[in-house]
Amino acid sequence: MMFETSIPIRVRYAETDQMNVVYHANYATYFEVARTESIRQLGFTYREMEDMGIEMPVVEINMRYLRSARYDDLITVRTQLKELPKQHTITFHQDIFNEAGKLITTGFVTLFFLDRTTKRRSSMPDILRDKLLPYFGGSEPALPAV
Amino acid sequence: MMFETSIPIRVRYAETDQMNVVYHANYATYFEVARTESIRQLGFTYREMEDMGIEMPVVEINMRYLRSARYDDLITVRTQLKELPKQHTITFHQDIFNEAGKLITTGFVTLFFLDRTTKRRSSMPDILRDKLLPYFGGSEPALPAV
Amino acid sequence: MMFETSIPIRVRYAETDQMNVVYHANYATYFEVARTESIRQLGFTYREMEDMGIEMPVVEINMRYLRSARYDDLITVRTQLKELPKQHTITFHQDIFNEAGKLITTGFVTLFFLDRTTKRRSSMPDILRDKLLPYFGGSEPALPAV
Amino acid sequence: MMFETSIPIRVRYAETDQMNVVYHANYATYFEVARTESIRQLGFTYREMEDMGIEMPVVEINMRYLRSARYDDLITVRTQLKELPKQHTITFHQDIFNEAGKLITTGFVTLFFLDRTTKRRSSMPDILRDKLLPYFGGSEPALPAV
Repeated sequence: MMFETSIPIRVRYAETDQMNVVYHANYATYFEVARTESIRQLGFTYREMEDMGIEMPVVEINMRYLRSARYDDLITVRTQLKELPKQHTITFHQDIFNEAGKLITTGFVTLFFLDRTTKRRSSMPDILRDKLLPYFGGSEPALPAV
Repeated sequence: MMFETSIPIRVRYAETDQMNVVYHANYATYFEVARTESIRQLGFTYREMEDMGIEMPVVEINMRYLRSARYDDLITVRTQLKELPKQHTITFHQDIFNEAGKLITTGFVTLFFLDRTTKRRSSMPDILRDKLLPYFGGSEPALPAV
Repeated sequence: MMFETSIPIRVRYAETDQMNVVYHANYATYFEVARTESIRQLGFTYREMEDMGIEMPVVEINMRYLRSARYDDLITVRTQLKELPKQHTITFHQDIFNEAGKLITTGFVTLFFLDRTTKRRSSMPDILRDKLLPYFGGSEPALPAV
Repeated sequence: MMFETSIPIRVRYAETDQMNVVYHANYATYFEVARTESIRQLGFTYREMEDMGIEMPVVEINMRYLRSARYDDLITVRTQLKELPKQHTITFHQDIFNEAGKLITTGFVTLFFLDRTTKRRSSMPDILRDKLLPYFGGSEPALPAV
């Protein structure tokens, strides 16, 4: 049981470097875009979470590069949440595939729940937990109510 | 009479694109770095100005590209303030030269003085005006007091 | 008569700065993404043009900022080609609107047709001219053949 | 025995995000700048290596974030090469400290030696190995010849 999404992203010219491929740091941004879109698919947004007073700084990122992405490639970022977050952190496993379905980049990102005002540790907001529960065997409906 | 500075910047790999030159939007960042360093040379910092409650969003930028900068080039950004700002905006003329002294990019940036709290128009803080006055014939000493 | 497209772009977290809005240089990247997608709507791609040996460095950009875009905003970039390029350059007029339809940023970008091998001036490739002609009263069909 | 450098970098406005700190992916660029400057301190440049036909794509990066860097902070990137590269890859350990000497970010980056023309695995060029040998007990002089 897990929560998983697949998000397409088109590589921008600005993201390439003189090696003619995507500059390695920019994959971290693709990961971030995919997390934003993953939360949106739950019927919630990361922006709303910030507005509620919780922000999520990254505490660790790991990326391994197996193949290159190039300008104008339509890549797919697969984001997996393999377990409900315990305590103060949440870890996403993220993999990027090219149009041929080959793995380009694989990695994980761990983020922290932080109270925006006090800048102290917080935990996952109930609204997000409720949205995620069904994917981990919770009693909630598996799809957002329409 | 004007205030003028020259700031060296080393081109980063991240700033190139697959045309093997600096991606055009990144020159705007070089301009911004040079403005930050220009204010520091006055014995003041833009960060202090933000801490005092004034921020300076860009209202217009123009850049013309004559030559290319490449990875590892040591470029020089010349920043000129040709007149003391009137009212709510300030315009910097900025030019970038390569190591051979050839002009790479020429442009200007107009910024706005904004009150961070009210998000309303503000004007140049007195402390910055006092630092600039000597360059425009004011009675203040031309160098920061040591 | 003109060629005009409207391209939606979602603002990324990476594109904001500590003023809580999109960093001004990043609008140049939005413009570039919209040009890429505009050419794709013609049934051609900028990548193919580079593969054919023509690249298009920017020679001038101008942007005026009227309002701010924020993280997660769904902005729309309108790109207008008001006349068929003469000689070696092409100018796009580009405007960005927020979800309420208000104008955020307005500007123009002039690019150059360059031979990738010789690094000398080139002109618009015939294939691109043929795709554009119908929008300027040419005899070609107004829609790409299906 | 190791090769170690400390490179100062001033945080740019462009590198912050709306959390008022440096966007996490930008630390990868700081690491890259520090590697470029580290090689320069050996009396050689990464640009020269590319010109000789060797490029070094990143194969893995890991970064842990302990504290935040802010706009205008003068951070220091410490780069350590703990052993001479074996075979086709090289690993740098990199740590970033703030002005108070506190650790902000710690990580490592593994890169690959690649032949630019054939795009096949290569190994460390002799000229770079010769520059590094003295730091690992080799017989070469410990400082670049003047």
